[in-house]
Amino acid sequence: MIVTVTKKALAGAISLAERIIPSRSAAPGLTLVRLDVRGDRLTLSGASHDADVETTVTGVEGGGEGSFAMPAHVFAQVVRAAPAQSVELRFGKQLTVHSGSFKTNIQLVDPSQMPQIEFPEEYSTRVDAAAFARAISSVRYAAAMAEFQAIFRGLALEQRNGKARLVATDGFRLAYTDLEADLGLEKPVVVMAKIADELTRFLGGGEVEIAFPQQRRLSVRGESFRMNLSLMEGNFPDYERVIPAQFPLQVKVRAKEFVAAVNRVSLMAEKTANNRVDMLVKGGQVTLTAEGSMGRSQEILDVEQSGPESEMLLAFNARFLTEALGPLEEAEVKFSGSANPAVFTPVGGGDYLAMVVPLRTQ
Amino acid sequence: MIVTVTKKALAGAISLAERIIPSRSAAPGLTLVRLDVRGDRLTLSGASHDADVETTVTGVEGGGEGSFAMPAHVFAQVVRAAPAQSVELRFGKQLTVHSGSFKTNIQLVDPSQMPQIEFPEEYSTRVDAAAFARAISSVRYAAAMAEFQAIFRGLALEQRNGKARLVATDGFRLAYTDLEADLGLEKPVVVMAKIADELTRFLGGGEVEIAFPQQRRLSVRGESFRMNLSLMEGNFPDYERVIPAQFPLQVKVRAKEFVAAVNRVSLMAEKTANNRVDMLVKGGQVTLTAEGSMGRSQEILDVEQSGPESEMLLAFNARFLTEALGPLEEAEVKFSGSANPAVFTPVGGGDYLAMVVPLRTQ
Repeated sequence: MIVTVTKKALAGAISLAERIIPSRSAAPGLTLVRLDVRGDRLTLSGASHDADVETTVTGVEGGGEGSFAMPAHVFAQVVRAAPAQSVELRFGKQLTVHSGSFKTNIQLVDPSQMPQIEFPEEYSTRVDAAAFARAISSVRYAAAMAEFQAIFRGLALEQRNGKARLVATDGFRLAYTDLEADLGLEKPVVVMAKIADELTRFLGGGEVEIAFPQQRRLSVRGESFRMNLSLMEGNFPDYERVIPAQFPLQVKVRAKEFVAAVNRVSLMAEKTANNRVDMLVKGGQVTLTAEGSMGRSQEILDVEQSGPESEMLLAFNARFLTEALGPLEEAEVKFSGSANPAVFTPVGGGDYLAMVVPLRTQ
Repeated sequence: MIVTVTKKALAGAISLAERIIPSRSAAPGLTLVRLDVRGDRLTLSGASHDADVETTVTGVEGGGEGSFAMPAHVFAQVVRAAPAQSVELRFGKQLTVHSGSFKTNIQLVDPSQMPQIEFPEEYSTRVDAAAFARAISSVRYAAAMAEFQAIFRGLALEQRNGKARLVATDGFRLAYTDLEADLGLEKPVVVMAKIADELTRFLGGGEVEIAFPQQRRLSVRGESFRMNLSLMEGNFPDYERVIPAQFPLQVKVRAKEFVAAVNRVSLMAEKTANNRVDMLVKGGQVTLTAEGSMGRSQEILDVEQSGPESEMLLAFNARFLTEALGPLEEAEVKFSGSANPAVFTPVGGGDYLAMVVPLRTQ
């Protein structure tokens, strides 16, 4: 069977799939990509331990019907190297990829060596793809990185006040954002934040459909892709309990300027001492200071300050500050005390909230 | 003493110096940069085990006279972070760097803790800076990387046939290029290729002056910099002896197209087997083939072939081929036999020659 497809479409589809499919694995079947030809559609699919993925290329010429498998990263490299605008795939005992004067034979593998991948037929809800991607990107920084941090590495999805909420927390800080969608969830589900990062690459324009089959996966379907994300086991922490409600001191800041100043000042902060930046709020000014073995940096910013308290000295991990402010433009920073979490929201309210626990000032 | 300087000039000067000065060293004095203020000139200097460097900023306002030292990488980071167009340097017990609303104190160190740096007053010759940089860049790839490879990590400079010649070889390949200059050298000198790389960053427009003080260093002086490169000890190999003179088969190729084809085909080559690509020259065509555990790639290129022999089968490390052809446009590839070195030169002659020893074909 011979099919012809544009290089651009095929390279785009395999490059997305390749991000999920591991290049090495103790289970060799996991490194494979499956190609299914059905008329003018070519479907690429594969899996990792935490996700399944399928991307589809349409407008395939030649056609026929067949299923094949091969190492995903080999196929991806060959397709990306193709020198001509179109790529011919000739399936026999081997796959011969032909483009311009370049010809490559790739060993085929029996597709039965791959894990069985199933995508749901029915989806329960729809959501704007770009808004979903933005929501994931705006909170995922607050998730933990290290393996031992278990559920803290997750991104929780829950239905709250009629909206879909995405929440991440590593125990020292938290971020959530709300999205116009009815997930139909009775209790929160949690996906791994790093797999959610991959999902955002698939989320282009238009809408995607969402389902939670057997409450074991998050399944997302777009025009040219389907993806299953495994749900994490364990209970996501009861985060609302720790968000303060009383703020005796508040400031309004332009987030970009504030972040730039924190970055400059934190040059002198000691990475080994939590990258600490001191923050004195007083008289309509925020004074940022960092001190380490190399010297001391300081920057003073004018802010719009409101009471009832007139001053407060706090200390923060500089990175936690800049990440909390990252998704914001005009930001309201609300202090509940020197030793209590600070809260970051858009001025005038909005669908984003970040919280950062300060460092001890003594 | 207070001086003011534009951020752009200061950041440029410290960034160049910083590339030479190590960020960590068993000799802490080596991590320092020295600042000398003399009227409207600010000079930054520092050293590594293999090189000394000095960069100069002119148009400094304020002025005065003094010498100071501090960790180079700290100073560089602070200068780059400066938010305003100008930077004020206030020298006291500490250095206070002030730019816009940002202020940093950096601990100063006694400049006597730094190694003594001396640059020659007299230079023996002049060379076009851009041509010198191009010459270094076009041959340095052929130098060896690993520490144990001793003199093979070097770039040799010698005077030959009235020109300055730069040569690099790792024993498996070789490259040289000739430059219009009289180095006044009686025998070759060798500098470390990776330090020569750094020198190229200083080589902008105009001319630079060159000296070999006491045959112990290569010293280069430009309008706003001076640099000493230590000479390596040991004898550079007698490379001319191994360059073949008889070529029973030759082809002319467009280097860029040929390199692109080698890159595509070598996808299937085994990195652990010298990244081997087979090359069959026959009937006005070069057939490139690579085979590995994943499959087999092939590409056929039309070339201009000349005899007396009508065909030859060779094998090469793909990277050695692409690097040898890198500096060329229209290239002449001359074969002296399946087991003998191939030679790469510009069509119609020129100041560049590369040689690559083929892999065994059986």
